[in-house]
Amino acid sequence: MTAPLLESHIAGRWVAADDEGTPLPDAVTGETVARVSTAGVDVTAMLDHARRVGGPALRELTFHQRAGLLKALGLKLMAGKDEFYALSRRTGATDRDSAVDVDGGFGTLLSYASKARRELPDDTVVLDGAPEVLGKRGTFLGQHVYTSMRGVAVQVNAFNFPVWGMLEKLAPAFLAGVPTVVKPGSQTAYLTELVFRRMVESGLLPEGSVQLLVGNPAGLLDSLGGQDLVFFTGSAETARKLRSTPAVLANSVRFNAEADSLNCSVLGPDATPDTPEFGLFVDQLVTEMTVKAGQKCTAIRRALVPRALVDDVVEATRVKLAEVVVGDPAAEGVTMGALASPDQRREVLKAVGALRGVARLVAGDPDDFTVRGADRERGAFLPPMLLRCDDLGAGEPHDVEAFGPVSTVLPYDSVADAVALAERGQGSLVGSLVTHDPAVAREFVLGAAHAHGRILVLDRDDARESTGHGSPLPVLVHGGPGRAGGGEELGGIRGVLHHMQRTAVQGSPDVLTEVGGRWMTGARRTDDGVHPFRKSLAELRIGDSVTAGPREVTLADVEHFAEFTGDTFYAHMDEAAAAANPLFGGRVAHGYLIVSFAAGLFVDPDPGPVLANYGVDGLRFLTPVKPGDTLTVTLTCKQISPRGGAEHGEVRWDAVVVNSEGKPVATYDVLTMVAKQWPPAA
Amino acid sequence: MTAPLLESHIAGRWVAADDEGTPLPDAVTGETVARVSTAGVDVTAMLDHARRVGGPALRELTFHQRAGLLKALGLKLMAGKDEFYALSRRTGATDRDSAVDVDGGFGTLLSYASKARRELPDDTVVLDGAPEVLGKRGTFLGQHVYTSMRGVAVQVNAFNFPVWGMLEKLAPAFLAGVPTVVKPGSQTAYLTELVFRRMVESGLLPEGSVQLLVGNPAGLLDSLGGQDLVFFTGSAETARKLRSTPAVLANSVRFNAEADSLNCSVLGPDATPDTPEFGLFVDQLVTEMTVKAGQKCTAIRRALVPRALVDDVVEATRVKLAEVVVGDPAAEGVTMGALASPDQRREVLKAVGALRGVARLVAGDPDDFTVRGADRERGAFLPPMLLRCDDLGAGEPHDVEAFGPVSTVLPYDSVADAVALAERGQGSLVGSLVTHDPAVAREFVLGAAHAHGRILVLDRDDARESTGHGSPLPVLVHGGPGRAGGGEELGGIRGVLHHMQRTAVQGSPDVLTEVGGRWMTGARRTDDGVHPFRKSLAELRIGDSVTAGPREVTLADVEHFAEFTGDTFYAHMDEAAAAANPLFGGRVAHGYLIVSFAAGLFVDPDPGPVLANYGVDGLRFLTPVKPGDTLTVTLTCKQISPRGGAEHGEVRWDAVVVNSEGKPVATYDVLTMVAKQWPPAA
Repeated sequence: MTAPLLESHIAGRWVAADDEGTPLPDAVTGETVARVSTAGVDVTAMLDHARRVGGPALRELTFHQRAGLLKALGLKLMAGKDEFYALSRRTGATDRDSAVDVDGGFGTLLSYASKARRELPDDTVVLDGAPEVLGKRGTFLGQHVYTSMRGVAVQVNAFNFPVWGMLEKLAPAFLAGVPTVVKPGSQTAYLTELVFRRMVESGLLPEGSVQLLVGNPAGLLDSLGGQDLVFFTGSAETARKLRSTPAVLANSVRFNAEADSLNCSVLGPDATPDTPEFGLFVDQLVTEMTVKAGQKCTAIRRALVPRALVDDVVEATRVKLAEVVVGDPAAEGVTMGALASPDQRREVLKAVGALRGVARLVAGDPDDFTVRGADRERGAFLPPMLLRCDDLGAGEPHDVEAFGPVSTVLPYDSVADAVALAERGQGSLVGSLVTHDPAVAREFVLGAAHAHGRILVLDRDDARESTGHGSPLPVLVHGGPGRAGGGEELGGIRGVLHHMQRTAVQGSPDVLTEVGGRWMTGARRTDDGVHPFRKSLAELRIGDSVTAGPREVTLADVEHFAEFTGDTFYAHMDEAAAAANPLFGGRVAHGYLIVSFAAGLFVDPDPGPVLANYGVDGLRFLTPVKPGDTLTVTLTCKQISPRGGAEHGEVRWDAVVVNSEGKPVATYDVLTMVAKQWPPAA
Repeated sequence: MTAPLLESHIAGRWVAADDEGTPLPDAVTGETVARVSTAGVDVTAMLDHARRVGGPALRELTFHQRAGLLKALGLKLMAGKDEFYALSRRTGATDRDSAVDVDGGFGTLLSYASKARRELPDDTVVLDGAPEVLGKRGTFLGQHVYTSMRGVAVQVNAFNFPVWGMLEKLAPAFLAGVPTVVKPGSQTAYLTELVFRRMVESGLLPEGSVQLLVGNPAGLLDSLGGQDLVFFTGSAETARKLRSTPAVLANSVRFNAEADSLNCSVLGPDATPDTPEFGLFVDQLVTEMTVKAGQKCTAIRRALVPRALVDDVVEATRVKLAEVVVGDPAAEGVTMGALASPDQRREVLKAVGALRGVARLVAGDPDDFTVRGADRERGAFLPPMLLRCDDLGAGEPHDVEAFGPVSTVLPYDSVADAVALAERGQGSLVGSLVTHDPAVAREFVLGAAHAHGRILVLDRDDARESTGHGSPLPVLVHGGPGRAGGGEELGGIRGVLHHMQRTAVQGSPDVLTEVGGRWMTGARRTDDGVHPFRKSLAELRIGDSVTAGPREVTLADVEHFAEFTGDTFYAHMDEAAAAANPLFGGRVAHGYLIVSFAAGLFVDPDPGPVLANYGVDGLRFLTPVKPGDTLTVTLTCKQISPRGGAEHGEVRWDAVVVNSEGKPVATYDVLTMVAKQWPPAA
C-alpha cells in the first residue's frame, strides 16, 4: 500500500495535492509514513477565507466564549490522546517526549482558556491602563484600548513539536479573535494533520477560524497585509528569509520569530559536589540532552561550570549518560528515541564535527553506540554526546548549534565571567542557573536578563516543583532577543495582546465611557431615585449612582473607633504629637473609619441583588479628615461583568468620599457580587 | 561668507566632514543656511562609544536619576528657546509651528521626567505583572522583569520636526538606560544641531548617552546587533528600505517605524451645520492643513463627510481657507509658512496632480496665490489646497499622499461606510471623528480602531481642552499598523519598555524576592522582635514582619460596628436572611470591621518613622468571618521606595489576616509613608 498523501484543510474542505508528493520517513524504521505536497493547491484562498469568514465569526464571540471553545477542544483532544502517542512514536518520540508535545499542547489550550476567563473581560475589547487626564478641567481624556486585528495569523512551525507548536500559537490567536493558518514542519506533519482532523471533527471551531496547510507555503507570505501576522518557529536562517519577504517588509506585517538558540545552564560557584544543587545541575543537563533527543530550541547547548568543578561535572554527567538507553520508543526500557529524520542526524553530525575542532568529546561516540529494538542504520539514531571546551577564545561553542543530544561544558571563573559567556550566545530563549545563593542569583539574573527570554533559577527549594530549563510555559513569555529571533510568544494574556492593535482613544468622559464600557471620572451619573443596590444586573446601567451623607465625624467617633479596634495610633489620639506629624498637623480620623462610615452611608440594608462586597481596589486617602469634618460619599456603577454560567456577576463601583468643602478625602473601587436577576428565578 | 558645515557629535567631540558638503536652502529665501556631509566620518565609532561608554554610564543611574536629568535638560532648553524659534523660521515654520516642534519637544522631556518619577521605581529593573504561581506548594514562581537592552537606539528622523522628532525618541530611550544616536532629516538638520549644541553645553548628559550624526548614515545600520534598536520616522518607502538592511534582518534588530499615513477625519451624521460639531470639524480641518504647511505625518488627508453635507463642508472650509495668509513666517500676519524645501514643493505638486485625476480642486490654486513678505519663486511656498472626490471607486485619495497643505473631501453614507473608507488608508497614525452622539462614537471607534494608532473624538464637551487631531502626546501611543509603519512610540512608560527586554524569571520565592526587590508570598520573613513600624527606611529590610493577634470577633462586635457605622446590611444583622445568601450561610462580620481590627492589631501607637497609611491596594475578602472566629494578622515589608529629594519614602506591606484555622480571610497591601531617618536629622 502506498503511504497516504497528507491533505490540507482549506476553506472548510480537505484538499489533496495533484501529484504524488515527497515521502516522509519513519524516524525509527525509515519506512515511509506519509507523503507531502501542495502542488496545485491554492494557498492564497486560505487567506481570503480566513479574512472573510473566520475573522468575522471569531469576532462575533467574546473572550469568554472563545475561551469556552478552547477548553472544550482541549478536553476533547486530551480524551483521545492514545492515537496521537502511537503516531508520535514514528517521529522518534518516546512517551516522555510525547507528554511534552501532546499533553503540553492540550494543556496550553486549557491554560489559556482559564487565564482568559480570569483576566479578560467577557467582551471583545481590552482596556489598557488607566485613563490619562489630558486637560485640567477633566473634559478631555485618553484611554488605550486593544481590539482584534482584522487579518490572519500565519504560523510557520518547526518539525520538533508537531502538536504543541500548533496549539501554543493557536490558543492566543484564537482568543484574540484572529483566524489562523497552520503550516507544520513537513517532517512530522502527519501527526499535526491527525490532530487537526480530530479538531475539525469536534465541530467546535468556527468555520474559517483555523486552516491547515501541509507542504510548501510558497506564495502565502507574498499576500500578507498590514493586519496580518506571522508567527515563526525554526532556524535563525529561515527566520531571516521569511522576514525578507517583500510583502512582509512593505506592509509592516507583524513578524514574530522564535529561533533555536545556544542556551546556557550555569552551575553556581556555591554548588560544589556535596550540595543538592550539583546533582540538580547534572540531572537537568542530562534531561535536556535526551528529551526529544535534544531537538528542542530550548535545550542546554552550553553548560557553564566553575573551573574547579569541570572535572566533577563531566564525570557525573558521563555516569548519568551511560544509563541512557537509545532505541525504538516502543521498545521496553528505551529512554531516548531517534532524531526526526536521517537529514537531521546528518546536520547534527556536521555540527558536532565543527565543535570537535575546539572541544573534546567526553561522552558518547556517534560511531559506536547501541540501539535497542531497531536497526541503527535505518533509523535516525544518535547517542547523547557531551563535549568539553577549555578554550574560551573559541567561537564555535557559542555559535554552532547541534540540534540534537549534544552539549558542551565550558569553564568560568567568576559570576561576571558567566554572564559574559552567556551573552556570547547573542540572545537566547532561556538560560538557567543552579545555585542556592540568592546573591549569585541576583547578580547573574540582572546581568544576563537582557540576553534572555526566560531564566530559571533552580535550587533545593524549588526543584520539586520546577518545570525545568527546557519547558516554555503558557503563562510565561517564550522568545528571546537577537539570535533567538527577537520575538515573544505566550506569557498568558500578553500573547493574546500580540494579536491585537493598541489604540489611544481621546474624547470626553462620556464618549470614553461609551466606547470602553467602563465609567470614567467626569462622565454622566444617573440617580433615578432607585438605590443602585436594588438593581439586578438586568436592570443596572453603567453610571447609575447614589450619593449619601453628609455625616459628621466627631472627636468622640475617632476616640471610640480607636478604643474599639485597638488602633490608638498617635495621629488619632494625641493632639500634640499629631500636630508634629508633617502630613497631618493635628488629630485626624482613621482611614478605616472613613471607609466604614462611607459604607454605612451607601449600603442598602435589606436583602437584594447585591450579594457581597468581596473587595476594594486602589484606596487612597487624599486629604486628612479632622474631627468636625463631614463625609459625603458618591457611589457610581463603573463596570459590569456578568459571569458566564453563573447566576451573578461582578460589579465595580467608583467611590468618592468628600469633606464639607467638597474636597475628596478618599477614592476607591468597591467590588461586589450582584445577582443577574432579583428576586432570583425560581 | 560660506554657510557653515554642520558637525556631528561623536564620542564626545564635534567632528566635521572632510569635504564641502551639500547646501541646505532656507525655505523662505532659498539662501544656503548650512551645508551637510559625513564624508570621512567614522559612523560606526558612534556605536562602539555608545555601547562601551554611554550604555554603562546610563545604567549606573536609576529611573528617577535619569528622570531628574531629563527634567533639568528640558527646563534649561526651554529657557533658551528664542534662538531656536528664530532659526526655525528658516525651515518655513511660523511661531505656531515652532511651538509644536520646539515647545512640544521640550514638553516631552518634562512629561517623561514626571511620568517616570510617578510610575517607575527608583531602581533599574521594572517588574511586569504579578508573580505566577507555577506549583501547588508555592515553592516555584515566575516573575516577568524588564531590564535595559545593552545596545544603541538609533533614531532616524524626518525633516519636519527637527526638535520634537529628536526629543520624543530620546526621552524614552534615555529613561530606559539605552544610549541614543540621533540622525536628523538633512533638510532641517541645522536646527537639530543647534539644539544638540545646547544639550552638550548643559553638561547634563552622561558621556556617550547621546550622539549626533548629521548627514548620510550609510554603514550605521550595517553594524547593528540583537541588542540594538532603530526608531524610524519618515516615508513608508524609506522604512521598507532600512528595514531590509541585512544586519537588521539577520540579527532581529528591533525596528520601529512611524510612517506618514493617509489619516482621516470623519464628520458624524449628527453634526449638521447648525451644531457646534460642524464648526469644530471645519476648524480642525483647516488647522491640520495649515500647521507646518501640512507637513505632518498625522495631518488630515481625507475628510469623510455625510453625503448630504459635502457641499456645506466644502463651502465652509473654503471660507476659512481664504483667511489663511501664506508667506515669510517673520512677516506680520502670516499664518502659514513655506514648505521645508523646493524639493518638497515639487513632490507635493506631483501628488496633487495625481489626485486631480480623480478629484476636483475646490480651494487653492498652486499657480495663482499670494505670498506675503517673500519671493514666491525663491521660497518653497504653496497655498492650502482642498480637493473633492465623489468617485468612491478611485484609489488615489486613499493611497497618494501629498505631504503638504492638501486634503480631499469624500462622501459617505453610513457609519459602516465611514469605517470602510477609513480602513482603505491601509493603516493610519490617527483618525478623528467629530460627533456628539456617543453611539456613533462607539460604532466608529470600535470598528476602525484596528486600523489606527490613535483616534480622537471631538465634540462640544471636550473641544476646549482637546489637543487636536494632529498632536501626538507623550502619554499616548503614537504609531499605527500597516502603511503607518506598524510601530508604536511614546505612550508614557510603554515607550520606555520598548527599549527593554522582558524576561520571565523562574525560581523560589526567596530568589525572586532577591532578584526583583519585591517580597513574594512564600519568601522568608524576619521577625527580630523589633516592630517594623519602629524602623526607618535606613533600618527596614524587605521581609521584616510582625504577627499580631489572635483577637476574637464577637457577635456584639458585629452589632456594635453596624450600629456605630450605620452599615446594617442584612448579612451582618439578620441570621435568617444571611443564611439564605448563597455566599455566607449565616451572619458574618463586616469586611471593614476585619481590616479595622487588623489595623488595631498591627499598628504601633507611638510616634515613629511610619508617618501615615495613605492607602490600600488589592483588598480581597476570601473567607467569611463568623461571630466567634478569631483574627490574626501578619504584616510583611514588601517593597521600599525611598523618594528622591524627600525625607521619606513609600513602603508597601503585605497583609494577611487568617482565622482560627489559619485560613486567609483577607489579603491586601497597606501603603505607608516612612521617614528615611528616625528620629529625623536635626
